Amino acid sequence: MPDTLPDDSVGLVTPQTLEFTEPLTLACGTTLERYELVYETYGTLNDDRSNAVLICHALSGNHHAAGYHSMDDRKPGWWDNYIGPGKAIDTNKFFVVCPNNLGGCSGSTGPRSTNPATGKPWGPDFPMLRVRDWVESQARLSDALGIERWAAIVGGSLGGMQVMRWALEYPDRLGHAVVIASAMKLSAQNIAFNETARQAIMSDPNFLDGRYLEHNTLPRSGLAVARMIGHITYLSDHAMGEKFGRELRSGSFVRGQHDPVEFQVESYLRYQGDSFANNFDANSYILITRALDYFDLAREYDDNPVQAFAEARCRFFVVSFSSDWRFSPQRSREIVDALLGARQPVTYTAIDSPYGHDAFLLPSERYREAFTRYMAGVARDAQRQEAKA
Amino acid sequence: MPDTLPDDSVGLVTPQTLEFTEPLTLACGTTLERYELVYETYGTLNDDRSNAVLICHALSGNHHAAGYHSMDDRKPGWWDNYIGPGKAIDTNKFFVVCPNNLGGCSGSTGPRSTNPATGKPWGPDFPMLRVRDWVESQARLSDALGIERWAAIVGGSLGGMQVMRWALEYPDRLGHAVVIASAMKLSAQNIAFNETARQAIMSDPNFLDGRYLEHNTLPRSGLAVARMIGHITYLSDHAMGEKFGRELRSGSFVRGQHDPVEFQVESYLRYQGDSFANNFDANSYILITRALDYFDLAREYDDNPVQAFAEARCRFFVVSFSSDWRFSPQRSREIVDALLGARQPVTYTAIDSPYGHDAFLLPSERYREAFTRYMAGVARDAQRQEAKA
Repeated sequence: MPDTLPDDSVGLVTPQTLEFTEPLTLACGTTLERYELVYETYGTLNDDRSNAVLICHALSGNHHAAGYHSMDDRKPGWWDNYIGPGKAIDTNKFFVVCPNNLGGCSGSTGPRSTNPATGKPWGPDFPMLRVRDWVESQARLSDALGIERWAAIVGGSLGGMQVMRWALEYPDRLGHAVVIASAMKLSAQNIAFNETARQAIMSDPNFLDGRYLEHNTLPRSGLAVARMIGHITYLSDHAMGEKFGRELRSGSFVRGQHDPVEFQVESYLRYQGDSFANNFDANSYILITRALDYFDLAREYDDNPVQAFAEARCRFFVVSFSSDWRFSPQRSREIVDALLGARQPVTYTAIDSPYGHDAFLLPSERYREAFTRYMAGVARDAQRQEAKA
Repeated sequence: MPDTLPDDSVGLVTPQTLEFTEPLTLACGTTLERYELVYETYGTLNDDRSNAVLICHALSGNHHAAGYHSMDDRKPGWWDNYIGPGKAIDTNKFFVVCPNNLGGCSGSTGPRSTNPATGKPWGPDFPMLRVRDWVESQARLSDALGIERWAAIVGGSLGGMQVMRWALEYPDRLGHAVVIASAMKLSAQNIAFNETARQAIMSDPNFLDGRYLEHNTLPRSGLAVARMIGHITYLSDHAMGEKFGRELRSGSFVRGQHDPVEFQVESYLRYQGDSFANNFDANSYILITRALDYFDLAREYDDNPVQAFAEARCRFFVVSFSSDWRFSPQRSREIVDALLGARQPVTYTAIDSPYGHDAFLLPSERYREAFTRYMAGVARDAQRQEAKA
């Protein structure tokens, strides 16, 4: 918890909630009659509304991307390294909006919300979502905020998938697409890890076919295992080695004891798993990983990504990290190749980093420089828009 | 199931069991008063007993390395690709012995066996094992079979760890150490995957602190998730992509259905997990993965592998596979570097393979050639021994 707020922090922030009453028909065919989105904003929207940046979050993210909710917070928002005054996404220049996605569990309508048809939590009956549903609900949020066109839409991992889908669905509503550590579709290995995590959750006896809330319980151990699987895949082998090596907790081997937690990495993982299990919703986890699995940018473009990107009208910034094996640099290069094939303007930065997929969240000099420089260009574009207006 | 046995098969084989009544004090300090080892043999021991090859199995392996138990078997033993007449480990030349390790669940004394102190299954009270305990029990099996010196000891993965430990503990009892897709110790990431698998098992409510057999139940879903985690890490991303791609089972997306298994890779993994859960013992899985985690070849040699290998007196053959990310080629190169540092004779073959860690079990032309050629040299050495005798 900070004694005083850092100078480059957006400071204390308060989430806001908007209710949407225009029915939203989802890709699965189900219609949500009404829903709420919770979101945070940082910085000030300029007069012609040309300096807005939308942040799309990843699997375990939410609307709290920067700053603190109270002086008692132990940590700032999840992307505080890159959002704030003078930071890459400079809140002195930009008006930043970050919503919690529909189907999430941090305040937006999702499996924990009440199903109006039953008066009970939606739970497993919450409709299946696709990335395009998030884009659609974010477009409605844009309308509600009076933002016709985003200076940039920015996201890492699953967030990057939303950014790409935005560029195809609403080509006129964004100036720049910033796609970090992402992919046009998951590999079989990615899907396999997600499926294993879902199996861990669904085989927890407290899962109760997803109706755990109705029974006042939580599938904590299943969700903890799911998070442990995820967590390992977000870090590189090297990063885990650096962080834990083969350090023993006690300094020596415990002999013959049942269930000893002996390696530091074991206790770290258990802590991560348990803490996640207390905060995240299991149905949300299943729903979001399925949306990840299903995402396939070019599916309805004859499986041809060049054809898909032909629709886009924004500039692209693509970033990858050398040790990211969940969304490897090869996946980013495929995006770049498709953009080049479609004659779209793209800047690609490959960052050397030992920190795996998590690198997109972590401080790193070259990443910071490249990201800051690119976003400075976005700000100049926005100013030009403003001058023209 | 074969209609006729292939010409290059060892044919129908019958496991044998030996009971050991000399107490065995384990590395953890516990003494096993008596224990049984089940093993198979292929080929014929020559008169001076110089042509014996010991096979050390990996995590999910057992004594059934080659041939068939009956004409109804759907598959031969786990290393049938490389053990048989005319194969790399040529049973026309070698007498091959493969035991099931102590603590396993295929017939040797382990958690499923009766604890003489209680009359109930050992379950979670089966003593913790280290790789050196397996080596010790294999040495006693060697004595019982009258094999003073193995022409070669051969193993992949965890099997390779046993081979290296043999070379240090009993330097005069082997002529060649064949170490395939192995490592001198696990990385933090390896340990993290094992720990996640153990957590999946232990959080299954049917695990009952490991006393599931006493309650006539099995922690099937936990063990299935553990196997799924393991299985993903044995395959490469590429191999999974080749095998399954993003193929859908039904050819199109099921809309809004609860718990759909839609991707081929999902149903494959579930099948693998379920089938393993019906055959393997959960306490064995925990015990064996812990032995894997603890293994550190050079721990008692001042953490200096060069110093460790200074003890060895055999020749080494080290093999790695390019896409193996569980035991990467880098880990094999570390073994080779340590051997070179210790001025030990070593042959290293790096095989290009897209099949990940599982490549050590699978047919591959260059691997077969290198393995066959090396083992032919082992056979010549054995003949020389015989001629001298």
